[in-house]
Amino acid sequence: MTGGLGVVGLERLSLNQATVKHLSLPEAVAVCQRHGIPAIGLWRDRVAETGVAQAAAAVRRAGLRVSSLCRGGFLTDADPGARRAALADNRAALAEAAGIGAPTLVLVCGGLPPGHRDLGLARRMVRDALGELVPDAQRLGIRLGIEALHPMFCADRCVISSLGEALDLAEQFPVDAVGVVVDTYHIWWDARMLAEIARAGPRIVSYQVSDWVLPLPQDTLLGRGHLGDGAIEFGPISAAVAAAGYLGDVEVEIFNAGIWAAPADETASTVRERFAAVLGGG
Amino acid sequence: MTGGLGVVGLERLSLNQATVKHLSLPEAVAVCQRHGIPAIGLWRDRVAETGVAQAAAAVRRAGLRVSSLCRGGFLTDADPGARRAALADNRAALAEAAGIGAPTLVLVCGGLPPGHRDLGLARRMVRDALGELVPDAQRLGIRLGIEALHPMFCADRCVISSLGEALDLAEQFPVDAVGVVVDTYHIWWDARMLAEIARAGPRIVSYQVSDWVLPLPQDTLLGRGHLGDGAIEFGPISAAVAAAGYLGDVEVEIFNAGIWAAPADETASTVRERFAAVLGGG
Repeated sequence: MTGGLGVVGLERLSLNQATVKHLSLPEAVAVCQRHGIPAIGLWRDRVAETGVAQAAAAVRRAGLRVSSLCRGGFLTDADPGARRAALADNRAALAEAAGIGAPTLVLVCGGLPPGHRDLGLARRMVRDALGELVPDAQRLGIRLGIEALHPMFCADRCVISSLGEALDLAEQFPVDAVGVVVDTYHIWWDARMLAEIARAGPRIVSYQVSDWVLPLPQDTLLGRGHLGDGAIEFGPISAAVAAAGYLGDVEVEIFNAGIWAAPADETASTVRERFAAVLGGG
Repeated sequence: MTGGLGVVGLERLSLNQATVKHLSLPEAVAVCQRHGIPAIGLWRDRVAETGVAQAAAAVRRAGLRVSSLCRGGFLTDADPGARRAALADNRAALAEAAGIGAPTLVLVCGGLPPGHRDLGLARRMVRDALGELVPDAQRLGIRLGIEALHPMFCADRCVISSLGEALDLAEQFPVDAVGVVVDTYHIWWDARMLAEIARAGPRIVSYQVSDWVLPLPQDTLLGRGHLGDGAIEFGPISAAVAAAGYLGDVEVEIFNAGIWAAPADETASTVRERFAAVLGGG
């Protein structure tokens, strides 16, 4: 590492598959190889399409690290049958993470249960579900990564809306089983962010980056931009994450219809350039 | 008050003028009279159109209370000339608040300065500007109300993104000069909300209500809904605000193109019914 704690070298770049959404897993692996990207964040649908064993072999043959598997979660269904199904699905995801060599399963915890307005109830449902999943995570050696989502997704996707809240939740479980994901897009606005990153320390299991770009699109899930195109100052966040002790892969994860429509090699090239320029200090 | 701390009676209902955006001030006053709404939250553009003295007389004749004047703020311009202009404009707004009989000037503090990504800088600019406005506020007997806006507005409208942050800022100034606005739409997602409302105590200068409705519209400023149409559980918030000691007017402030297009009497009628049903406990 050169240039201080806020500088991230290209050897830590991971391409999250969601950034090249329309590629199969073998195609995404090939893009990483062509662009000298040493790690990849995988998605379950693409892993399933390829098959866990074949996907693991393809990644291994390409010499890539797997930085995470996306994603588990959606743990706030009030219906007992749906709840059992969600737990079973998360157990399957943990097994897939183990099969594919991902150290972390990223969790999007779920929004308010349909017909409910009680955020406290929803948050307790997440906690209780995590408690049920922890033994499986420990048995498989996979860490559950609680991802705080931006508060604009609180009602429908994730009732965990700040890094501090994610951390308060994670700290109720063993550190080898439950951690937190630091995703710049979701938490950049938070005046407490840097203090919470410091508090997170060894709980940080993933560092994901994308930029906050305005205006928000009609589908607010797709508003993320390439590093440098938006409002986020990445240096202090990267420095805090490094100071907290996380020196692992840094995933570029961009949901954006325009970027998805671009040729994947163009996207990968931009991802690499921006990573070097914005996170690598030029 | 009956039915516990979370119950708000109709005698505390205030119609924020933004909810009937297309009405002049005299028209909005008349709507309040027709619907038995005892207070009104005024907007500067409509006050200016009518003239401060005439507006004050119209409100007084109608027997209405003025709950607040919206709005001041936008204190994060980096250009010295623009900054001086913003301060002058806020001083004018304070004088208008005094002229119209509003106890509070609601502030939307401003987003990142153009071309900047340093949130800390922007927040210090807000603090410094408040420091300059405090003597004017005290001289006129008006309280500046810092409104935390939803984090989705952090980049472009308000770098103060949580009630706790607004309170940390307010507490740097005398309590008679600077307080905080509790607006359900902006802070309902925050796991720390109830604790921060309790901490706010006598700093609460305004309680504004509207509901969080999905999907967000293309213009995310206009996503608010009538009470009961969305995800927010108002009872615990109202109870916390009352327990903190705020027993003043409760403003219904809804930015929504569909509601603006409806006849104002229909809107006022719905506002009153929903207030009674959702905040008044039926």
